[in-house]
Amino acid sequence: MKQERAAHTRQSLIRSAAEAFEQHGYVRASLAQISSSAGVSTGALHFHFANKAALASTVEASAAVVLRRSAQAAQRPDLNALQQLISTSHALADQLCHDAVARAGYRLNCETPHRTGLELRGEWQECVRHLLARAAEDHLLADGIACEDLTTSVTAATIGFEVLGRRDFGWLSPASLTRFWRLVLPRWATAPTLAGLDPEQRPATT
Amino acid sequence: MKQERAAHTRQSLIRSAAEAFEQHGYVRASLAQISSSAGVSTGALHFHFANKAALASTVEASAAVVLRRSAQAAQRPDLNALQQLISTSHALADQLCHDAVARAGYRLNCETPHRTGLELRGEWQECVRHLLARAAEDHLLADGIACEDLTTSVTAATIGFEVLGRRDFGWLSPASLTRFWRLVLPRWATAPTLAGLDPEQRPATT
Repeated sequence: MKQERAAHTRQSLIRSAAEAFEQHGYVRASLAQISSSAGVSTGALHFHFANKAALASTVEASAAVVLRRSAQAAQRPDLNALQQLISTSHALADQLCHDAVARAGYRLNCETPHRTGLELRGEWQECVRHLLARAAEDHLLADGIACEDLTTSVTAATIGFEVLGRRDFGWLSPASLTRFWRLVLPRWATAPTLAGLDPEQRPATT
Repeated sequence: MKQERAAHTRQSLIRSAAEAFEQHGYVRASLAQISSSAGVSTGALHFHFANKAALASTVEASAAVVLRRSAQAAQRPDLNALQQLISTSHALADQLCHDAVARAGYRLNCETPHRTGLELRGEWQECVRHLLARAAEDHLLADGIACEDLTTSVTAATIGFEVLGRRDFGWLSPASLTRFWRLVLPRWATAPTLAGLDPEQRPATT
């Protein structure tokens, strides 16, 4: 019972910290405010986290867990690699839209990647590269489309949607991403592959 | 003579401030360090700028001037609107790569757009929208390509190149942007337009 309560308090603190980092930035977020909006004393906060940096590292690590889990769930083995890429982009955008911890942790990580050793933007780029390499192996890409060029462009565009989405969630909406995929897939995929792709496909809830 | 020296000092301070903001961030950059690397006393700095915020606003305003000038030079009247868009993207990337004031001012502006009332990212999006609307009017866009969707995708991708270029200038190189344009133009432009486009074209030095 006691353990459950402690776990619950810890989760509340992580969520309050994420909200404070998002609203005020890491530097200006205050521990007093974070503990108060989690409904606990600053003593209780310090029982769980030594300082603000420890709290920020935990927010980042929590974001990494949920974002990786979303990405994995989107890469269903019955989908081809291009569809997996489309679905993963939708799943990550959705997570960033609806989960303050994912959002704050990802953004803290982009600003200060040295704190935790995580490199979430780099992980996304590797995921794009890996899925496009598989798409090339499986002959899903049109003639003359170089996998490495595609990796560069997809990475840049999706990072752009994420950055623009910080001020306006519309950029992370399924409609925005779908428009992007519709504009590029006809050039990038072979005709038979294109016929089977769904640029709107978001992963089914698991 | 005295006026010339004052103007020169002011420019040195703007450049040192840009370098300091870029290296240490706005919050941690110190006025003592900025004046010292400009080779002037802190007294001289305060003669020109009331405080760090005033210096930052001037760096932003200077960035706006050079970026707008580059963008305008790239939109040569003998080029069609799509070629102007390609050339403008190259010109801005080049400016961000090679000019510390443009880079620091642009980035300060993205982080704290409220300071000066400038909204440089928004200006870029409007520039993209305007050039693509002209491209549509001039029948340069392929059938079924909606101008607004194109604006979204080009804005996201180019902002992505800029953000990724903060850690690695390779993203802002002519080669990176050229690869992007090569991957997308064949789908977006009509066949006769495509034949006349140069995805590498950077504006001639004026």
